[in-house]
Amino acid sequence: MSNANADKGPITEAEIFASHEGGKLSVELTAPLDTQRDLSIAYTPGVAQVSRAIAADVTLTSKYTWTSRLVAVVSDGTAVLGLGDIGPRASLPVMEGKAALFKSFAGLNAIPIVLDTKDVDEIVETLVRLRPTFGAVNLEDISAPRCFEVERRAQEALDCPVFHDDQHGTAIVVLAALNGAVKALGRELAPLRIVIAGAGAAGVACANILLAAGIPDVVVLDSQGIVEAGRDGLNSVKQDLAARTNPRGLQGGVAEALDGADVFLGVSAGKVPESLIATMAPQSIVFALSNPDPEIHPDVASKYAAVVATGRSDYPNQINNVLAFPGIFRGALDAGAKAITEGMKLAAAAAILDVLGPEVSVDKIVPSPLDPRVAPAVAAAVAQAARDEGVA
Amino acid sequence: MSNANADKGPITEAEIFASHEGGKLSVELTAPLDTQRDLSIAYTPGVAQVSRAIAADVTLTSKYTWTSRLVAVVSDGTAVLGLGDIGPRASLPVMEGKAALFKSFAGLNAIPIVLDTKDVDEIVETLVRLRPTFGAVNLEDISAPRCFEVERRAQEALDCPVFHDDQHGTAIVVLAALNGAVKALGRELAPLRIVIAGAGAAGVACANILLAAGIPDVVVLDSQGIVEAGRDGLNSVKQDLAARTNPRGLQGGVAEALDGADVFLGVSAGKVPESLIATMAPQSIVFALSNPDPEIHPDVASKYAAVVATGRSDYPNQINNVLAFPGIFRGALDAGAKAITEGMKLAAAAAILDVLGPEVSVDKIVPSPLDPRVAPAVAAAVAQAARDEGVA
Repeated sequence: MSNANADKGPITEAEIFASHEGGKLSVELTAPLDTQRDLSIAYTPGVAQVSRAIAADVTLTSKYTWTSRLVAVVSDGTAVLGLGDIGPRASLPVMEGKAALFKSFAGLNAIPIVLDTKDVDEIVETLVRLRPTFGAVNLEDISAPRCFEVERRAQEALDCPVFHDDQHGTAIVVLAALNGAVKALGRELAPLRIVIAGAGAAGVACANILLAAGIPDVVVLDSQGIVEAGRDGLNSVKQDLAARTNPRGLQGGVAEALDGADVFLGVSAGKVPESLIATMAPQSIVFALSNPDPEIHPDVASKYAAVVATGRSDYPNQINNVLAFPGIFRGALDAGAKAITEGMKLAAAAAILDVLGPEVSVDKIVPSPLDPRVAPAVAAAVAQAARDEGVA
Repeated sequence: MSNANADKGPITEAEIFASHEGGKLSVELTAPLDTQRDLSIAYTPGVAQVSRAIAADVTLTSKYTWTSRLVAVVSDGTAVLGLGDIGPRASLPVMEGKAALFKSFAGLNAIPIVLDTKDVDEIVETLVRLRPTFGAVNLEDISAPRCFEVERRAQEALDCPVFHDDQHGTAIVVLAALNGAVKALGRELAPLRIVIAGAGAAGVACANILLAAGIPDVVVLDSQGIVEAGRDGLNSVKQDLAARTNPRGLQGGVAEALDGADVFLGVSAGKVPESLIATMAPQSIVFALSNPDPEIHPDVASKYAAVVATGRSDYPNQINNVLAFPGIFRGALDAGAKAITEGMKLAAAAAILDVLGPEVSVDKIVPSPLDPRVAPAVAAAVAQAARDEGVA
């Protein structure tokens, strides 16, 4: 692994655009079609035998087509990176990049499916009609709170893994990193007081996985302050969140939340002032994950916190979804799983950290995103969890 | 080009199934993602610049994504090869093979999109929602008469090439081959009396292109006999066909149609007896295109006809759609065409035959399906026609 700006100098705009010309993906053949014999095997008349076999036993689809290794990367372009609702076409370079990561890190095929509708009913209906086309669905960059309903309803309607990476990919890597941090500090997970800044896709999913991991004291902030039951105008997702978090009944904003907190987890596009980080408890942990500009600069956060992580590749402790999603989909597809369960997500988080073993330190709470050990370890753990939970 | 059964002995069932394991396609990267620098260019943060540029000017989509070279191979699995309505999953090996042909012959990316609906409204609506995903649509193996409405409505709804290959791919190669046959025989196209056996997707499209090529005497047969205005119970497609064909007002069946005819074109799964081929005019032309079993064996047809063609690779004059569709889509996409017009189809037919030049003979009325000169020649002619017709 090399740093972004090493070796070849700073990345230029011209270089970025040149590398995107014609797109970043290509469909290739697994065997050449150079002779009449090749054609007669892969196409007519030979292919008719394979089609006839699948028609007689539809379970053979996974054996004789590419779908058992094919992930649809599905977006409506409404919440793309930090750019917001830029539309399906403008989201395509991101979806192609995601598909490229699936291949590079997990050997899976993936195709961008970008939809010219933002209607939840229509998105789910379209995926149902497309179901025979793919083996799994990675939902990507769909805005909250629609993303929660799209995911829930797609999971109900489809007999295959459906996973909104902006939610669960982030949550899984955060849990792995938090476990790494407490391990490096010799602390325990359960007593931590955690503040999550951001109640979008990632914030909600992080709250859920941390609660599921046995941490009761989670406080979530949105742009209006602490999400708590006394607030007016909460949407149903936030009402539900308010009912399950904030056990000390805090009210107010980030100042009230951070006072004495052990963990700050930033998954918004906002900022947090140094003066408030200074009010956190000793041995605190700061995950400032906004990209490319963290909620607080890691050099500043390090003045107060014992462990600092960001999404940046030029600082230690880079928290990046690529540690999770390639192995999760690979494991789920390898096992023939019909869904991705909470147990599979927790198994993935544990596997990410296990890769480090005794290497864990305050500057290495998760493996590097380019660590080749991660995806196979996650895939094996997720496949095993799928079998243990009876979804494979 | 080698024959199907040469060199390696007969193709076995085991060999066919083994070659289909895991599917026939793979999504690959156009550049490696091995370093943090690669990731920062192809994914975050670099990709945001490309997405922002497309959001500001959506015409940049074709330059900076793979869609301008991406064909969706779309089927509902209702008319797959000669197998009929075997469903979308069983159609997948055929669609993967088709996608492989797009890459091998025209360097285009193609992905199978198989739909779990047979409803015309739903198929068209799904393609509209998917529109930002691809650059062109190859409709495949959709049963008649639904295929005509699906194609027409998809063409109206989408601002990109939409082409039902079972109709037009066949028709274009048939026109090229018929021109090759009359050239080899020193005959003229316009005075030919043509009998088409089959009024499905291919039969209707062949009738249309032959009429458009200036041949008035076309008679079409379905399983009930000659399609003519006096018959009860014709669907709207056949009513339309009856109004435009059969200028001599023939009634009856294949015997009445073939008596004195110059051309027999078989695009059904049926048979035609030798005794009726014997009643055709001198210097007759027989295209028996049913696969794998032609309407009449080429050895038998050759006793009477001056030119015989089939879909078989082990006889001369193999009529195969692969001569047309790769170059047509490549030409249309190269030109940025919004549609595939009649003029582009006629240009493709002419280009296929032009490849042979003085090589044309009664045993070589079209190039071999593996002739590498064909797709580039077709693509160039189609792109030029698109510009001439103002759709590019």
